[in-house]
Amino acid sequence: MSIELHILGSGSATPIPGRNPTAQLLKLDQLDVLIDCGEGTQIQMIRFKQKPSRIKIILISHLHGDHYLGLMGLLSSMHLMGRREAIHIYGPPPLQEILEFQFKVSETVLRFPLHFHPTQDKEFAHLTEILGFDIFSFPLSHRIPTIGFLVKEKPRRGHLITDLLKQYEVPIEKYKEIKAGADFVTLDGNIIPNQVLVKSSTPSISYAYCSDTAPTKEVLNTIRNVDWLYHEATFLHELLDRATETFHTTAKQAGEIARDAEVKNLIIGHFSSRYRDVRPLKLEAEMAFKNVTAAEDGMKFIFR
Amino acid sequence: MSIELHILGSGSATPIPGRNPTAQLLKLDQLDVLIDCGEGTQIQMIRFKQKPSRIKIILISHLHGDHYLGLMGLLSSMHLMGRREAIHIYGPPPLQEILEFQFKVSETVLRFPLHFHPTQDKEFAHLTEILGFDIFSFPLSHRIPTIGFLVKEKPRRGHLITDLLKQYEVPIEKYKEIKAGADFVTLDGNIIPNQVLVKSSTPSISYAYCSDTAPTKEVLNTIRNVDWLYHEATFLHELLDRATETFHTTAKQAGEIARDAEVKNLIIGHFSSRYRDVRPLKLEAEMAFKNVTAAEDGMKFIFR
Repeated sequence: MSIELHILGSGSATPIPGRNPTAQLLKLDQLDVLIDCGEGTQIQMIRFKQKPSRIKIILISHLHGDHYLGLMGLLSSMHLMGRREAIHIYGPPPLQEILEFQFKVSETVLRFPLHFHPTQDKEFAHLTEILGFDIFSFPLSHRIPTIGFLVKEKPRRGHLITDLLKQYEVPIEKYKEIKAGADFVTLDGNIIPNQVLVKSSTPSISYAYCSDTAPTKEVLNTIRNVDWLYHEATFLHELLDRATETFHTTAKQAGEIARDAEVKNLIIGHFSSRYRDVRPLKLEAEMAFKNVTAAEDGMKFIFR
Repeated sequence: MSIELHILGSGSATPIPGRNPTAQLLKLDQLDVLIDCGEGTQIQMIRFKQKPSRIKIILISHLHGDHYLGLMGLLSSMHLMGRREAIHIYGPPPLQEILEFQFKVSETVLRFPLHFHPTQDKEFAHLTEILGFDIFSFPLSHRIPTIGFLVKEKPRRGHLITDLLKQYEVPIEKYKEIKAGADFVTLDGNIIPNQVLVKSSTPSISYAYCSDTAPTKEVLNTIRNVDWLYHEATFLHELLDRATETFHTTAKQAGEIARDAEVKNLIIGHFSSRYRDVRPLKLEAEMAFKNVTAAEDGMKFIFR
């Protein structure tokens, strides 16, 4: 299964030429997950030739306008385009009221089922499971209730290494659970880790999304070792005071988080509109962590 | 005083490449009036180098998303840009609740006064007066409560034609009211029309905005003789059934309205996303009326 991340908007509160507010598409084989939906997201989707009909799940991190104001327009367009298929939206509880009130005053009765799943921002939570992926939310540290998202492919079943199974005298009735990921405990109590007995075909992919947030140690364990981390880096570190005051992260801090969480790749984004050239932000993040990409609208990341 | 109309968005519900949802700026000398504010309006303003700080008045015709979904983002950006100056919004009453609720959940306390003036859609009404212009609203005929807008320059004071004032024996104490636009009644009861006694320097300008609406005879007197009429023309006449069902106007009907209201110039817009080339709509409107322009995003009309 191919897994790609397409950046639809890499900016922050105030749009600038070429940089829209936050939105991104996590593209799995048969469907897309939309993560945040700033104003103009549907227009960016047209620009980058993305089909709203492929979106089955929408995740909204928080209710600052640059992360959700494009949602009403996108849902309205889906309606006008004749969508019949259900959509699932995960987001802060007031978002449901915002959407329902606007549909009410515009006298819009959606032709497709909209399932709203209110999120909470107090603890790590499993939101849903789709196509072999688990989607979780976790608390971030921002001015208003805000969550990050972790999308994690389930362990992929591999091939049993028969020679080793025989060597450890694994009974045949255990093969199924070992294939499903279980370790094996020998008669004398030794644990043979699953990865010794099973050769996985291709590794599972994990992606974490952290925007908007002050840097917080609490997320480190949640996002540890992910293959790809998108982390906001609104300011250069010379504006640390401004970042602290507004509960945002500097590029230097984003790099440190990637390093401390031992992720494999870091994408930074949510840049303040003051930065027309974001290379200095990338350079700053690279002081702490090697694999950094500064997001641009239209950028694609091929996770697999 | 210069008067210009800049089209920020000429499309309808679903955006297409190069054609955003409805928004336009009526640019007077020192300020702008924003008429409708579809999603992406602030991004279009950046594209066309327009400054949000110049906007003092915002008029919203109705609460279909393609006419107001850009408002929250625009107001938020004004706030973030440090605006202090008051803004006046005229629109349907539920819009106030939509804005206030979204500001509440985002914990935004605007740094500038926002004066919301609820409109009604039952009768012609004077909304406000600014820089020698009166702004009126009037009922349109759409699926939900919708109003049009009439912006009308007050009669411009001209020069008194002294020879004629003497000839008609106008007492000096009447000069002031004649300069302000009054007719003169002679001692034997004859009315000397103002325009005989006063030579106006340049004519007053009037502009009417009708979107969205089914064609309706009720507006004819309201918009009669305006210099510029913007009228929606969502469909070609071959889709009359669809236009009727959705309370929209065909290009042919828009031309007929311009002809019947004896306006001077017609701008058509709010085109359905099915029309990538809008020349056929212009040609159809021209069957009834000569001076037609099909709006494009970024187009400027110099009214004076």
